[in-house]
Amino acid sequence: MAIILGDNQYGKAESRVVRIVRDTARHEIHDLNVTTALRGPFAPAYLVGDQSNVLPTDTQKNTAFAYAKSAGIRSIEEYGLALARHFVNDVEPAEGARIEIEEFAWTRAVIDGVEHDHTWTRTGAETRTAAITVDATGEYVIGGFKDLVILKSTGSEFAGFLKDEYTTLPETHDRVMATSLVAKWRFDSASFDGTDVDWNAVYPKVKSIMVREFATLQSLALQQTLWQMGRAVIEEIPSIVEVRLTAPNKHHFVVDLSPFGLDNPGEVFIAADRPYGLIEAQVLRDDAPPAHDAWRFSAGLA
Amino acid sequence: MAIILGDNQYGKAESRVVRIVRDTARHEIHDLNVTTALRGPFAPAYLVGDQSNVLPTDTQKNTAFAYAKSAGIRSIEEYGLALARHFVNDVEPAEGARIEIEEFAWTRAVIDGVEHDHTWTRTGAETRTAAITVDATGEYVIGGFKDLVILKSTGSEFAGFLKDEYTTLPETHDRVMATSLVAKWRFDSASFDGTDVDWNAVYPKVKSIMVREFATLQSLALQQTLWQMGRAVIEEIPSIVEVRLTAPNKHHFVVDLSPFGLDNPGEVFIAADRPYGLIEAQVLRDDAPPAHDAWRFSAGLA
Amino acid sequence: MAIILGDNQYGKAESRVVRIVRDTARHEIHDLNVTTALRGPFAPAYLVGDQSNVLPTDTQKNTAFAYAKSAGIRSIEEYGLALARHFVNDVEPAEGARIEIEEFAWTRAVIDGVEHDHTWTRTGAETRTAAITVDATGEYVIGGFKDLVILKSTGSEFAGFLKDEYTTLPETHDRVMATSLVAKWRFDSASFDGTDVDWNAVYPKVKSIMVREFATLQSLALQQTLWQMGRAVIEEIPSIVEVRLTAPNKHHFVVDLSPFGLDNPGEVFIAADRPYGLIEAQVLRDDAPPAHDAWRFSAGLA
Amino acid sequence: MAIILGDNQYGKAESRVVRIVRDTARHEIHDLNVTTALRGPFAPAYLVGDQSNVLPTDTQKNTAFAYAKSAGIRSIEEYGLALARHFVNDVEPAEGARIEIEEFAWTRAVIDGVEHDHTWTRTGAETRTAAITVDATGEYVIGGFKDLVILKSTGSEFAGFLKDEYTTLPETHDRVMATSLVAKWRFDSASFDGTDVDWNAVYPKVKSIMVREFATLQSLALQQTLWQMGRAVIEEIPSIVEVRLTAPNKHHFVVDLSPFGLDNPGEVFIAADRPYGLIEAQVLRDDAPPAHDAWRFSAGLA
Repeated sequence: MAIILGDNQYGKAESRVVRIVRDTARHEIHDLNVTTALRGPFAPAYLVGDQSNVLPTDTQKNTAFAYAKSAGIRSIEEYGLALARHFVNDVEPAEGARIEIEEFAWTRAVIDGVEHDHTWTRTGAETRTAAITVDATGEYVIGGFKDLVILKSTGSEFAGFLKDEYTTLPETHDRVMATSLVAKWRFDSASFDGTDVDWNAVYPKVKSIMVREFATLQSLALQQTLWQMGRAVIEEIPSIVEVRLTAPNKHHFVVDLSPFGLDNPGEVFIAADRPYGLIEAQVLRDDAPPAHDAWRFSAGLA
Repeated sequence: MAIILGDNQYGKAESRVVRIVRDTARHEIHDLNVTTALRGPFAPAYLVGDQSNVLPTDTQKNTAFAYAKSAGIRSIEEYGLALARHFVNDVEPAEGARIEIEEFAWTRAVIDGVEHDHTWTRTGAETRTAAITVDATGEYVIGGFKDLVILKSTGSEFAGFLKDEYTTLPETHDRVMATSLVAKWRFDSASFDGTDVDWNAVYPKVKSIMVREFATLQSLALQQTLWQMGRAVIEEIPSIVEVRLTAPNKHHFVVDLSPFGLDNPGEVFIAADRPYGLIEAQVLRDDAPPAHDAWRFSAGLA
Repeated sequence: MAIILGDNQYGKAESRVVRIVRDTARHEIHDLNVTTALRGPFAPAYLVGDQSNVLPTDTQKNTAFAYAKSAGIRSIEEYGLALARHFVNDVEPAEGARIEIEEFAWTRAVIDGVEHDHTWTRTGAETRTAAITVDATGEYVIGGFKDLVILKSTGSEFAGFLKDEYTTLPETHDRVMATSLVAKWRFDSASFDGTDVDWNAVYPKVKSIMVREFATLQSLALQQTLWQMGRAVIEEIPSIVEVRLTAPNKHHFVVDLSPFGLDNPGEVFIAADRPYGLIEAQVLRDDAPPAHDAWRFSAGLA
Repeated sequence: MAIILGDNQYGKAESRVVRIVRDTARHEIHDLNVTTALRGPFAPAYLVGDQSNVLPTDTQKNTAFAYAKSAGIRSIEEYGLALARHFVNDVEPAEGARIEIEEFAWTRAVIDGVEHDHTWTRTGAETRTAAITVDATGEYVIGGFKDLVILKSTGSEFAGFLKDEYTTLPETHDRVMATSLVAKWRFDSASFDGTDVDWNAVYPKVKSIMVREFATLQSLALQQTLWQMGRAVIEEIPSIVEVRLTAPNKHHFVVDLSPFGLDNPGEVFIAADRPYGLIEAQVLRDDAPPAHDAWRFSAGLA
């Protein structure tokens, strides 16, 4: 028997890169959390501590900040592609690079009805994400968001389910449905090969499709809602070939007010913390090109 | 020497009360985190374990849910006053009650340009708060918010400060200023005594005044910005007699890009986590009526 | 009507100071989170942005790190006193200083039965705390800990409580009692004036007294347990004149297994997150010297 | 083009199961966080909302609590196997089950030198974990822990690394090395097939091997330390065929005290929050049996 090094990667996680564009009096802000990782012939660093192929994670961090200036940040997808291409093309040992980015949204302050030039408040809604992989097999871009908290107060059912000796849940045809959605969508690599993609236009379009499906479907299960969200995105945005969804079912239980002589027809709920249902699903085109390592080292769906 | 019981209170913290108003097809949502506490002759519970005066915290929780139905939730201030008055008036031993509430904001989903009747996404911006105290001395209402994250990319200086042998900070006349503001404002109790206050109208007014002052003041220090925020609120809203502000100075450090041959005139920053400056201040009318126990057991400014 | 600046302080929060003592091959580690604040004539910084009296928070941070070397860290109480005295004595405008410190505990790794010289694992149990105040009225030291999570599986009752129309809780004479205790104890300032106190010896003594009382009292209410903890500390440690306790009642609910044909005589529980009971109490000697501003700006009990 | 449902699973996350064993006066406690998930022919729930094959997540939760009583919790591996086997064997549609468990450690309180029968304090050190998968291909058990925070104050170097135009990091031959380790180890399924494994004995053995390697290796890189940890575990524990490690490099930067006239030869550090290095690696026997879906839906290494 021998012991071997298997899969591995290393990098710098969570560099908090803030970029102000101040070419005119009307500034712009980009507020990112950037994680970079390299893949390649790094076994000697593990086996004998030989660092000669290892670009320090500190250098990767420096590169992320330098590129925020030299390449700029038009979108996190484009900035991530520039970083990943640099590592693979310019750092000799690196065979693959993976860049994960979170973008925190800010809203321009409005003073007396006018948008302010250089003041913003943080929008605490969902966080936009991107995961870019570049290696010998090609370039892969995954857009996404996390923590989109969404709730509907009716239009959701749960009935007709399988029952066994541990089942006590009653069926319902009208309940609150809420989740804190994590969604990731993979682009067809052919869609951005050599051309300019308007990544910033795709993002709100995906989000609005998902919100629309969540709101308008008479839902028989959270599973069905997720499927409809993913299906609609792929149908309506040709450049997206795959959607992955992770959705906690944030339970809102009807409070029994009858001991206090009060009716409660779906009006007063307790929002529970734990446990919660957790649904994970992948929706994709049957002719989607292979993902290779685009999802490698991601959390959740492997 | 004798050992005595000093100050004390007890209650139920963080009941997650969600109220849906569904009288018409267009639902409304109120999403609260409610903490209640009682004050009074509870020493026997401590000294000898005698619970005969102790209304269980479980009962306090039930009351919060029942009142969400029976009294409703027009504003967190009004709902909190109803709860506090109930405990003091209807629970014989209770001499004082304190209700603390957080309200999480939701935004109605917009589908094809139309607001949806029963779907919302959580607005992750600041959390609205209220702290209501009712006791023998009167009724006290403190409005507020926490975690309003706000940033300006210019219009902020820090210079002319005291220097000693441990000072290394350079002076600057143009920096990023950012904070995650906690603000609390105390109402003149006379302003809501017997009359209807439009609490929901006051809240956005306070917030917009604070954002305006943050944005438009050429700031010489975060202290000055806080003072101007508090002063303006008191000047422009007569029913508010006191403002308390807690403001971390969320440092954004200019990254030195010169080793990479790049200029960085205030364009690329690293957002630091810790340590951070922390400024706390109280601003008030010199004729403000006494606060008595309105702030008792609060975090921060005592 | 005039608007005035009331109570205020400013400083640097959460400097993560790690001190390694390496005078011999057997190293020591002190791992602190240090917050400093100054009080005094700082109104001009607020009113007109005049910083001439303001020692920057960056300088306060530098001082905390420099003192970790020059004064050393024998105990957090002693190190905090040195810092506070420096600010009040050496920084001319400062009239008062408040130092809050958290200490994270590490345990020496044991390799083949022998303690290792320079490797530790973090002990994740409670965090030791200190709050030191120095001003014109004297010197005040508050020791403490936070997040001591403690549970007893029997020996706890809750019965004989007040009932009203919102009460549904059944009485019980055998339940799980658990809390995540925050405790703070104030020393008699006379006890450390001019003499060496062995702060590091007091800490485990206080903790073991509290754990003993929690374990051995047949508890009729969490209030009673808190009282006994505070009372015993003051009785057994003459230098401590006051104890303040904040204790969430971390509910463990018996799960109803009868639908599955199973008995559950206090064996299977669900640990709930929210809501939770919250008990806060102060226990003190009736001849305790005045605390002046020792507790000012603390969270909780004012 | 057609759109299809890809990989998916659903279940109940984070049921907080607390089990007290009270057969004698000396109680035992098991404090778990249990997540269950099912895999199988659940496409109709997504595509058309048909729940007839769907065992509700609420039922899965009930089962976890019921099994805490009926099967008991001797170890989290054994309890997890019992749950997984039940779902696959007894719930007709389920083809696979995955159980993830966290166990929070408690230490018996010691009163006057004697261990107490029914009181514990929570040990906040690392959290033990298990991930059990049962499906048509077999049974898979992954043991582990997360958040083992470990630090060495010397015996760590980083030099000889690759340099490019973004490299500014100096080389060092003596630095602090610290991490918050996540480790997972896969057992040879043959090792527990039909026999009793003493899972509770393996756990401390793995941990002590890892701590030993971290402490005693003169480390040339965190990568090398991880490799040695994994290698040693596999060499010394024959039933373990694979180890996966995720290790943030928790940077401790030497503070420059020279402006204050102080030397700092590796004595005073600032512990940084973000960014941090992140090293992920898999170590395995070259004849390890296939893992099939044992790691599916895990975070990190896919």
